Amino acid sequence: MDVVRSRAELHHALAALPRPLGLVPTMGWLHAGHRSLIARARDECGAVAVSIFVNPRQFDDPADLAKYPRGEARDLALCADAGADLVWVPSVDDVYPPGFDTSVTVDRLTLPLEGAARPGHFAGVSTVVAILFAVVRPDRAYFGEKDGQQLRVIDRMARDLGITEVVRCPTVRERDGLALSSRNVHLGADDRAAAPVIHRALLAGRAAWASGERDAAVIRGRVGDVLATEPRADVEYISCADDATLAELERIEGPAMLSLAVRFGATRLIDNIRLG
Amino acid sequence: MDVVRSRAELHHALAALPRPLGLVPTMGWLHAGHRSLIARARDECGAVAVSIFVNPRQFDDPADLAKYPRGEARDLALCADAGADLVWVPSVDDVYPPGFDTSVTVDRLTLPLEGAARPGHFAGVSTVVAILFAVVRPDRAYFGEKDGQQLRVIDRMARDLGITEVVRCPTVRERDGLALSSRNVHLGADDRAAAPVIHRALLAGRAAWASGERDAAVIRGRVGDVLATEPRADVEYISCADDATLAELERIEGPAMLSLAVRFGATRLIDNIRLG
Repeated sequence: MDVVRSRAELHHALAALPRPLGLVPTMGWLHAGHRSLIARARDECGAVAVSIFVNPRQFDDPADLAKYPRGEARDLALCADAGADLVWVPSVDDVYPPGFDTSVTVDRLTLPLEGAARPGHFAGVSTVVAILFAVVRPDRAYFGEKDGQQLRVIDRMARDLGITEVVRCPTVRERDGLALSSRNVHLGADDRAAAPVIHRALLAGRAAWASGERDAAVIRGRVGDVLATEPRADVEYISCADDATLAELERIEGPAMLSLAVRFGATRLIDNIRLG
Repeated sequence: MDVVRSRAELHHALAALPRPLGLVPTMGWLHAGHRSLIARARDECGAVAVSIFVNPRQFDDPADLAKYPRGEARDLALCADAGADLVWVPSVDDVYPPGFDTSVTVDRLTLPLEGAARPGHFAGVSTVVAILFAVVRPDRAYFGEKDGQQLRVIDRMARDLGITEVVRCPTVRERDGLALSSRNVHLGADDRAAAPVIHRALLAGRAAWASGERDAAVIRGRVGDVLATEPRADVEYISCADDATLAELERIEGPAMLSLAVRFGATRLIDNIRLG
């Protein structure tokens, strides 16, 4: 497995890899969710590249950036074990050349939910992913459904620019239902024990939908009722939105994304589940 | 020479072309300036593609879009004669897929000059060129220096995203000095006769610089004095700016771009010349 840093080293290494090329873009602190993305790319592609870059431009809160977990040695070991051929670990200057002055933004899809809660977040995400796609030129890139709005924003951007097929991969969960996330490391023991309420709440919403309920307010209420049973859970939003546009729904008449953001102490967790 | 319209036809045709691939992006109504770009690409590349697309998203004024000159048959004849291998003539839907929601923008470089005069113009330009680069994936793309700020904006975007080398090509002029532009067709006989004052004014500014003048206000004044001799010329701006950042200068201490926008009746012309 090659580990490269500069764009020049990257291009040299890429030229030697068989196609199609799969890319798994990450911010490091890799876990079994990333491992599943690498394994899927391994199955579907001739070669697999992983990028590890904690992107400062997508953090609206400097404190959040400062405490984001990092550990290159363990990340590289996981990549090698999962079967990656190439890992790109760029510096900030390798990603953003001197004088950098460009933004790639998605408009309507980024207005609600995480876009409303974290100003500038998605501009940072879509810009860095556009750079990763343009520099690496993968045929396919693999993202988890856990970050549901991010997945849709990146897919929209990639379709609009005509680069890189975005492959949507199922959320990987702990046995108690908690979605894997690099942020879970910040949960204290009590919060960690409480956090699976998120998945139980989403499942309750989906159960209501599966039994025929189509009033989105009722579905959101069912999710909220379950979250309310856990006093450590500080709910930021509960959304039942059109699966394609992410416009908030009154009636559920097609595929929908049921999603939420909940804080446990200083740690903000998001999760979602699909209806339909 | 292949002429293709959909993205699928384009990709099929591109696969058969030798590399490196040069792209000449145009809005049609081709003239000797475009011919020189195609010829330069022909010299430097294994194959040459031309795109012809009047991009509605870069017109801030719908009337300007409506009257933009079009003539596909003559454009294709010029491309064939100049040695293009492939011409892509997409529809608006081929460039912007259904649900299109992405913008590629350059920030600081687009604040002054044409960016200030034409709100949204450069967002439209950088977005469509990013799409052209991402879809066509040329190794090099050729642009004329006549649209000086546009050239710098596109070069910045291409460097930041790590796609496509932008090749800067000299402005092609009529024998009387008027820079070739598709818009020149709108000039009445009297305005056409008067318009070469633009180039004379720029040359007067450069002559002052060449004789040692470094006060940018004096240089701008010299340009304005020459333009003032032509009553048909309605001056919009005269700029003497840092060649890299386009920040307006007081003292000229390095390379500079001397540029202007002038109206002759309803026709707005721009031109520029480099100092240093």
